[in-house]
Amino acid sequence: MRLATLADGTPDGRLHIVSRDNARCTPAKAAQTLQAALEGWDSLRPALEAEYAALNGGGGQPFDPAEALAPLPRAWAWLDGSAFDNHGALMDEAFGVKAEKIPGKPLMYQGMSDRFLAPAADVPLPSEEDGIDFEGEFGLLTTAVPMGTTDALPHVALLVQINDWSLRKLGAAEMKTRFGWIQAKPACAMAPVAVTPDELGPAWAGGRIHLPLQVTWNGAVFGSPNGAEMSVGFDRLVAHAAYSRHLPAGTVIGSGTVSNAAFREVGSACIAERRAIEMLDHGDARTPFMGFGDRVRMECRAADDTPLFGAIDQQVIRA
Amino acid sequence: MRLATLADGTPDGRLHIVSRDNARCTPAKAAQTLQAALEGWDSLRPALEAEYAALNGGGGQPFDPAEALAPLPRAWAWLDGSAFDNHGALMDEAFGVKAEKIPGKPLMYQGMSDRFLAPAADVPLPSEEDGIDFEGEFGLLTTAVPMGTTDALPHVALLVQINDWSLRKLGAAEMKTRFGWIQAKPACAMAPVAVTPDELGPAWAGGRIHLPLQVTWNGAVFGSPNGAEMSVGFDRLVAHAAYSRHLPAGTVIGSGTVSNAAFREVGSACIAERRAIEMLDHGDARTPFMGFGDRVRMECRAADDTPLFGAIDQQVIRA
Repeated sequence: MRLATLADGTPDGRLHIVSRDNARCTPAKAAQTLQAALEGWDSLRPALEAEYAALNGGGGQPFDPAEALAPLPRAWAWLDGSAFDNHGALMDEAFGVKAEKIPGKPLMYQGMSDRFLAPAADVPLPSEEDGIDFEGEFGLLTTAVPMGTTDALPHVALLVQINDWSLRKLGAAEMKTRFGWIQAKPACAMAPVAVTPDELGPAWAGGRIHLPLQVTWNGAVFGSPNGAEMSVGFDRLVAHAAYSRHLPAGTVIGSGTVSNAAFREVGSACIAERRAIEMLDHGDARTPFMGFGDRVRMECRAADDTPLFGAIDQQVIRA
Repeated sequence: MRLATLADGTPDGRLHIVSRDNARCTPAKAAQTLQAALEGWDSLRPALEAEYAALNGGGGQPFDPAEALAPLPRAWAWLDGSAFDNHGALMDEAFGVKAEKIPGKPLMYQGMSDRFLAPAADVPLPSEEDGIDFEGEFGLLTTAVPMGTTDALPHVALLVQINDWSLRKLGAAEMKTRFGWIQAKPACAMAPVAVTPDELGPAWAGGRIHLPLQVTWNGAVFGSPNGAEMSVGFDRLVAHAAYSRHLPAGTVIGSGTVSNAAFREVGSACIAERRAIEMLDHGDARTPFMGFGDRVRMECRAADDTPLFGAIDQQVIRA
């Protein structure tokens, strides 16, 4: 099943069912908003799936991904992992600040969740001096997860694709505080379509999305790392987050920047990682961060190259 | 003006006006919930203040603080500073992990905001082995704060009192990750009454609450440090948080653990700080962390010793 949210003047927008080819949509009948759908997921899903089956048979209105909001325009919690060890190792190098992993536990921070930008929304930021960077990620939306849950996969309702905007020159200093990031992590964006895991077929396995995330920067190919290389699966990330807290329905859990050991072949999903590779290769970082007017586009398509989450395609502007 | 939230079966509860002596209350007419009141604060406040004036003249129902929810039972954001430098210095010692401050910027982390425990609610936690600790704090609730706001005091709607529950043995390891805290920071609790700054009279000055926070643990006095010693005022904390993001109405901003340079006279507002002092004095920490069944009580009263925020009084239980 595929779901999207269209603007209707309310903070949470209006939930729509999207056809399997991402070409048509229709307002959901079983729930007004995605938050409401996730709060009642187990009881509402059959009705939503029936609406999806009917839409795939025909009807509905044209779906324009560029008009969509984030599937979940605001969430009660955004907990972002850093589950690609390859990325972590390169970032330690780039920042000159080492994130010391806890044995047996994934890295994770809590970020701002009160606003997820629409996939084609401009991104207002205060200064080009802050080291403006994108981070291509996969993510998921949970049902309610009780504290202490260890078998977390049944709580994975929907998979999403995220751009975790980052201000790198602020980020390194904030890491030194050991308090995590505040100024360095403005609002993220979310690709237009949230999908149930079954939409991925065998590309959803082991709590990982076995598909490449294609990133272009101002139209030039930047990277297409594959989600398969997560060092821990999404189930482990959810369970880590739920150790000492209940996770509310609609919690967004992120993979961290998608990154592969074969980074020289597949490229990267953020500028900071490319800069780290340049430092390793040349002793200095040569690729600048983003300027106002720059665009980044990210898309993960299905194994048969059909649309899946739709594309994030955003321009950075002066706030 | 004084406001509280009583349970009505909804996640946000029902907003009530509380009389100046915290003895009586009445359902608010101008807004159903505190979140709604904060979203329309500038236009709704006059009507709420009129209701408060009428209630102070008589009427209403008895107000039982022990029956109240947190004034804001869930919030879109919880950004907790560490604004008492004395506490920071002692905690660096206790954790053996130094939080490196950024010159000119306060320390701040983003914590879970989807649930603030009621002031008398039991606190379910997974294990006594995790180093269960309280943190007595002051806090505030904002109206909507646009990105880039530097003059933040006009956005301070209400002051609150918070217990920031912490799991210390997990906290030190999470600090080493530099990603901030996830497992070490379960849900906070909030004292029953949120008050407009004018309720404090001259005790609200310089963006600081110039009043002691009285903390008892299992009935024994633990400390009563004063909020006046914040190294930066709350206005600076709000502006820091708003540098690269809009803050939604109802954002909760915390002071961090209240702490004074005269800690030998006034005591502490968390166990970890007392343990740090013991380490300085004796070379080892002698006070254990909390066990299941332990209670902590925190109350900040007005300068004339009348009730202000009401008390947090909670028992820790096995989850």
